[in-house]
Amino acid sequence: MKNIIVGQSGGPTAVINSSLLGVFKTAKDRGADIVYGMVHGIKGLLDRNIVDLSKHIKNDLDMDLLKRTPSSFLGSCRYKLPDIEGNEDVYEKIFEILNELEIYAFFYIGGNDSMDTIKKLSDYGLKINSPIRFIGVPKTIDNDLAITDHTPGYGSAAKYIAATTKEIIRDGLVYDYPVVSIVEIMGRNAGWLTAAAALSKGEDCEGVDLIYLPETVFDLDHFIAKVGELLKEERSMVIAVSEGIKVADGRYVCELSDHIDYVDAFGHKQLAGTARYLTAEIAKRFKVKTRAIELSSLQRCAAHMTSRIDLTEAFNCGGAAVKLAFEGESGQVITLQRVSEDPYMCITKPADVHYIANVEKKVPREWINEDGTFVTADLIHYIRPLIQAEIDPLWVDGLPRHLKL
Amino acid sequence: MKNIIVGQSGGPTAVINSSLLGVFKTAKDRGADIVYGMVHGIKGLLDRNIVDLSKHIKNDLDMDLLKRTPSSFLGSCRYKLPDIEGNEDVYEKIFEILNELEIYAFFYIGGNDSMDTIKKLSDYGLKINSPIRFIGVPKTIDNDLAITDHTPGYGSAAKYIAATTKEIIRDGLVYDYPVVSIVEIMGRNAGWLTAAAALSKGEDCEGVDLIYLPETVFDLDHFIAKVGELLKEERSMVIAVSEGIKVADGRYVCELSDHIDYVDAFGHKQLAGTARYLTAEIAKRFKVKTRAIELSSLQRCAAHMTSRIDLTEAFNCGGAAVKLAFEGESGQVITLQRVSEDPYMCITKPADVHYIANVEKKVPREWINEDGTFVTADLIHYIRPLIQAEIDPLWVDGLPRHLKL
Repeated sequence: MKNIIVGQSGGPTAVINSSLLGVFKTAKDRGADIVYGMVHGIKGLLDRNIVDLSKHIKNDLDMDLLKRTPSSFLGSCRYKLPDIEGNEDVYEKIFEILNELEIYAFFYIGGNDSMDTIKKLSDYGLKINSPIRFIGVPKTIDNDLAITDHTPGYGSAAKYIAATTKEIIRDGLVYDYPVVSIVEIMGRNAGWLTAAAALSKGEDCEGVDLIYLPETVFDLDHFIAKVGELLKEERSMVIAVSEGIKVADGRYVCELSDHIDYVDAFGHKQLAGTARYLTAEIAKRFKVKTRAIELSSLQRCAAHMTSRIDLTEAFNCGGAAVKLAFEGESGQVITLQRVSEDPYMCITKPADVHYIANVEKKVPREWINEDGTFVTADLIHYIRPLIQAEIDPLWVDGLPRHLKL
Repeated sequence: MKNIIVGQSGGPTAVINSSLLGVFKTAKDRGADIVYGMVHGIKGLLDRNIVDLSKHIKNDLDMDLLKRTPSSFLGSCRYKLPDIEGNEDVYEKIFEILNELEIYAFFYIGGNDSMDTIKKLSDYGLKINSPIRFIGVPKTIDNDLAITDHTPGYGSAAKYIAATTKEIIRDGLVYDYPVVSIVEIMGRNAGWLTAAAALSKGEDCEGVDLIYLPETVFDLDHFIAKVGELLKEERSMVIAVSEGIKVADGRYVCELSDHIDYVDAFGHKQLAGTARYLTAEIAKRFKVKTRAIELSSLQRCAAHMTSRIDLTEAFNCGGAAVKLAFEGESGQVITLQRVSEDPYMCITKPADVHYIANVEKKVPREWINEDGTFVTADLIHYIRPLIQAEIDPLWVDGLPRHLKL
């Protein structure tokens, strides 16, 4: 028996299901017997909540729908495996279940935390001399994984952000009085997503006026002065800010607000957004209309506008993971390596999971301008190929059709 | 000389430029000499800020780009003409400029306020025996204009809301613990847009769990009880609320919040959003994750996902306005009349502007369920044809291309 099992973990992306399809289809093509899916990741596996994927991906239409379905088809979890030492019971249970299912190879599609899962499982497997192979498939809209040129999921999010920012700019510049629109974009620690707003500029679009990433310290006075300068021209402007920008003392900008919206049942403070705070600061000082726009979860689930480059690479990462496992490798993660700039070409390449797990990749300082108010041409050149080409939704009765478990 | 002039006013829609194209192309086809555009509506006209549209819409490619360009190509304004009595100087100035330009017919694309402009100008024209014809072309995402079956712009906004809600539902249901997501949708007084979230339900989607429109009184206790009931099943849910829902004493739900974000330079209180307030109320009472999502201005500017039905009707309304003016009519607005339900068919029909201006059309009470927590099948049946069919963006270098003045 050559059974395999695959799971999805962490925050979803628009193309995480293309990686799932890459694993499923390549495994089937290469002679796998049963392709199991963990429902809600490793947590689902521990609960023996698993499905036979062949019963859910039955034909070519299902495959084409799966590629166009946002969020994690198998469901996700935020569960992080405990350290092996002192928690051997958890690992014993996992391997007991995997052995019951006669698993030959285990695939996990996810970000930093998920790669940590692959690391721990393959480490434990080595320790007990298990023949099961463990391979990680990268995904995250945040693009913050080490070693890989970029992560599957980032290109589609970047495309959505750039296209939406273009639309917001057309909308924001419509009136004959100045309006300051601030667009808040995801990214607590890394500014890759916010940087994509820079792609809005072109022959047919003014682009955003200012961009603030979490990689540089945010200075409110400097920001206000910049906005004031632009307002002297009595024109509307659109500004892109990362949700994760922080001031010099280390507080998030959204923590500068006088009020806390509420404390949730888990004791987490829910803060007013960064864009809301900044528009309020502008409105206090200038006689100008303001608008705060949060792109929110649409950045990671707008499957109706995926990048075909991203989707293809996501599929290929899944497929390459299967190939690698079937060649006998374990404890590896598939990465993307840019082998040519012009024309853009990327290939998959395995990397030792120990070099990837728990390492966060930020935007290099030299790709941000000196006063931290915009990104450089090099950064735009890096992102541009990742948003290329499209894949139309399958429209049914006026709406994009998805595949549901 | 058969010169005409056209302007756009009020909040933009994804297809307001298709109406502009309908006016431009039909006027040219019917022998108009110069087609002038007012830049920033009637306010631009008063400033003699006008363009010759032939110099900006030069060929078929420009036309195809214009159809796909969100926001008002000519710019917009919120300027409302004063009453004729006592303000004759304003009207004299407008007619002086129109006569200078040898204007034969005047077209204004807009919502309630814009129809008021057509009413006043045609009334004044009659009074002074001017031969200039004044015709209104309806547009508003809010769908709140009287007499017309629906307004151009609504179908595309409804399609965006329904499609995005489907994606938010897939994303919101991904975890193995309950998450309550509240999606806030535009509409201060009318719930047409929020109702479109109901279209998300289908073979491939659970749909939203609850829908609250401004047409019924919002009861916070009843809402909390409803959410509590659903949470007993320990499942995630997605709820659609209109930004304009109000409690029994007439206050907006967003006004119930303890804090005011800020007072802007115009003295307007900027309130925390309805969704944010409601998620906070839920988080106070239940041990559950919450998410507040505001669709914000994307609802009216997401030209990358327009309804082709909507786009075609918007074009036709512009064209029908020109036809009507060239047949000698004035003081009319083009409306849409649904002449067949199945198959859906709509035709344009003129209506006296006096019956349309300043009248607001709300969702009928019988299209909302008894306890005000969902909409009826009749309402879904009414909206469904309006979101049908697509028009692909013209993709250039990974992004939708627009036409800029």
